[in-house]
Amino acid sequence: MMCTVCGCHDHDHDHDHRLIAVEQDILGKNDAYAADNRRLFASQGVFALNLVSSPGSGKTSLLVRTVAALKDKMPVAVIEGDQQTEHDAERIRATGVAAHQINTGKGCHLDAHMVGHALEHLPTLSGGALFIENVGNLVCPAGFDLGEAHKVVILSVTEGEDKPLKYPDMFAAADLMILSKSDLLPHLRFDTAACVDFARRVNPNIEVLTLSAESGEGFAGWLEWIETRRAHCD
Amino acid sequence: MMCTVCGCHDHDHDHDHRLIAVEQDILGKNDAYAADNRRLFASQGVFALNLVSSPGSGKTSLLVRTVAALKDKMPVAVIEGDQQTEHDAERIRATGVAAHQINTGKGCHLDAHMVGHALEHLPTLSGGALFIENVGNLVCPAGFDLGEAHKVVILSVTEGEDKPLKYPDMFAAADLMILSKSDLLPHLRFDTAACVDFARRVNPNIEVLTLSAESGEGFAGWLEWIETRRAHCD
Repeated sequence: MMCTVCGCHDHDHDHDHRLIAVEQDILGKNDAYAADNRRLFASQGVFALNLVSSPGSGKTSLLVRTVAALKDKMPVAVIEGDQQTEHDAERIRATGVAAHQINTGKGCHLDAHMVGHALEHLPTLSGGALFIENVGNLVCPAGFDLGEAHKVVILSVTEGEDKPLKYPDMFAAADLMILSKSDLLPHLRFDTAACVDFARRVNPNIEVLTLSAESGEGFAGWLEWIETRRAHCD
Repeated sequence: MMCTVCGCHDHDHDHDHRLIAVEQDILGKNDAYAADNRRLFASQGVFALNLVSSPGSGKTSLLVRTVAALKDKMPVAVIEGDQQTEHDAERIRATGVAAHQINTGKGCHLDAHMVGHALEHLPTLSGGALFIENVGNLVCPAGFDLGEAHKVVILSVTEGEDKPLKYPDMFAAADLMILSKSDLLPHLRFDTAACVDFARRVNPNIEVLTLSAESGEGFAGWLEWIETRRAHCD
């Protein structure tokens, strides 16, 4: 019922030492599980992406369109993370692509151990791509390596351009920022140039793509990004 | 760097007992601080609301319009929670209303102790209203009582109607769900009736208001809700 990531211990000095010990222990174990996942992906030539964002940024719609476009070109599968429901995995499976749902219950992010177990439920993806959709949360998933090649942060243009400054850890951890729901731009006051500037203040090397999973605008660039990065990881 | 709320310990039995002890300790202390805040609010006749949502749901725009409408009728002030930046407090202050910004750093929610200290920076609000804008996060703030009269969950219609089922703890903890950004409904496939049905599955008593801080649609109902509930708390 509390997050040690939140710095609660700054306000509650009594259990500083216990919190720090528990945090270091959990992160250390997560890193070991993440290294196991990464070794497995490398041995099978699997390109794994960890998709992170707020709830409702359109991660699942993005993935539905993405796997539909890729599935005849390479093996693909999806791991879905949510507190509750099997909805997202069902949406992926409707495309004919394998998906495994992780329900985290009270949990606010996936960890590498959960992902390792989820892999047991999916086909081997030799030479293919694995998409891991994290729990919708712009804070907690930032600190957890799942063994992915890249974290991809999705920010819908309805959320406002200031989010990279307000949630900097996530944008610092990601290699790519996708500005999603671009079909809604005509109805919003969203300053794309300012958003990119804010993201690069916290992460000078972050790449940026703008797209709509609804209209398909910008999708070719995203598929090309996947193809190029995947070739790199072979 | 980890959230004990997330159930990591289900996967990592070694530190179960430490985690549970730390969680109980922190929640117990938070509840004591929340009780202090609640006593203070009661003694001064302050009506306090805890606004929770995903990042980018429009909480600050909602508050800017709300405090502008209320400030000549009653004392009002705002506590803003974000990981970083003073932007939101500045937006509130531009209306002439007092605001105090809490930056949580790596933290993913406000706690009652932070709010107690923030009150030291605000004028006394005898007979007035205090709005606490939590960190944008549909998971972690659910478990933390700040001493508020009500949690109000804001869900922007761009986020999709399934969120109450996917993040049920937050919708169970709230007394009111505000469906925000209703001006965008003509451009979206968002099923309002389904969303309300999903919210009531996890919280049969939740009230629902639909509004736009952009167009002002539905705002009179929100101001009336505040007035009615505030009268109740006198």
